[in-house]
Amino acid sequence: MNICKESLKNMDERYRVNLINSLTGFKSASLIGTSDLDKKTNLAIMSSVVHLGASPSLIGLIIRPSSVPRHTYENIKNTKFFSVNHIHADFIDKAHQTSARYDKEQSEFSECNLEEFYTSYSSPYVKESHIKYMCEFREEIPIVINNTILIIGEIVEILMPDEVIGHDGFIDLEMAGTITCSGLDRYHSTNHLARFSYAKPNRWPEKVTF
Amino acid sequence: MNICKESLKNMDERYRVNLINSLTGFKSASLIGTSDLDKKTNLAIMSSVVHLGASPSLIGLIIRPSSVPRHTYENIKNTKFFSVNHIHADFIDKAHQTSARYDKEQSEFSECNLEEFYTSYSSPYVKESHIKYMCEFREEIPIVINNTILIIGEIVEILMPDEVIGHDGFIDLEMAGTITCSGLDRYHSTNHLARFSYAKPNRWPEKVTF
Repeated sequence: MNICKESLKNMDERYRVNLINSLTGFKSASLIGTSDLDKKTNLAIMSSVVHLGASPSLIGLIIRPSSVPRHTYENIKNTKFFSVNHIHADFIDKAHQTSARYDKEQSEFSECNLEEFYTSYSSPYVKESHIKYMCEFREEIPIVINNTILIIGEIVEILMPDEVIGHDGFIDLEMAGTITCSGLDRYHSTNHLARFSYAKPNRWPEKVTF
Repeated sequence: MNICKESLKNMDERYRVNLINSLTGFKSASLIGTSDLDKKTNLAIMSSVVHLGASPSLIGLIIRPSSVPRHTYENIKNTKFFSVNHIHADFIDKAHQTSARYDKEQSEFSECNLEEFYTSYSSPYVKESHIKYMCEFREEIPIVINNTILIIGEIVEILMPDEVIGHDGFIDLEMAGTITCSGLDRYHSTNHLARFSYAKPNRWPEKVTF
């Protein structure tokens, strides 16, 4: 199948949404935990978390403020903190359900049967997540072309089981049971294929073990 | 393990790079195909392709111009087009090898044994990729906080086998054999867990079949 620019433009909108959302490949699926100034909590599944850099440790989050994650956006702007929580196979249905349009008064934690967990920060973690981290809001960059926003957060705390982190800092996401997603609504587990050595021009990459 | 902001800051740099690169979860792995004004081709593996929106059909690409993908960046700025090519298990070693610092005169296509494929655009696709698409450069947004750039491209052509696209536009990435990656150097295949119905507040999500 060969889809050109014109057919993309004239396509049924729902069809195009499914197509373009799945075209970019597998994505991280994370639950973003926030609270408002009255400590009412909110939880939203997002597939737009992206690594920005390690020094300082920054992540990006693409948000469309007019859609479901609008409470998340308001909470981040008001409290300056949000947690990012990995999703595992035994609660993908609960994680998916956080994308429903609940009222601001309802917490997705209780509505979707997920448990809040706190450290010294006021934003809630998801207790069921094996890997989770807290971010402090750094800045927002408007993406004017399609009315979205890039939220930049600095990682200020990481919680995970000792056994999933290797001697070189690499996290074994597969051992932790982290899942991946495609499109708007499909979830997948993973199988290890290979880990390769650092690539250099005159040497073919070798398989590395943990 | 509980890592606080201070220990993150004082961590060995290589350890932190591995940690933060794997912390955000599974990522898309794509080969970005470009050419310069003299039609010399370039191919670079990237894990920072992110879906921005379907109307118009936009993707984002985080690039650090001072690192390996600098030729990719220059080519995109000069020719305005770049291809995004999915990676499959039978050529992950070749795809990984494109991250080596080859000279501008060397093409990663020939150095890594991948074949160029062209439609009406001047930028090369990877023939071996089952799913591939062409993007036209729209704009670049500087991310000043860590010296990176968000490149925004509009999708202008999509090539894929008929059998991987569903009646609703959803692409079956698993059937296409698209792989996912974690950290800087690990590759994984996927297993279907579930696809769920659109979430509504008063109804639990149901499993959807293709």
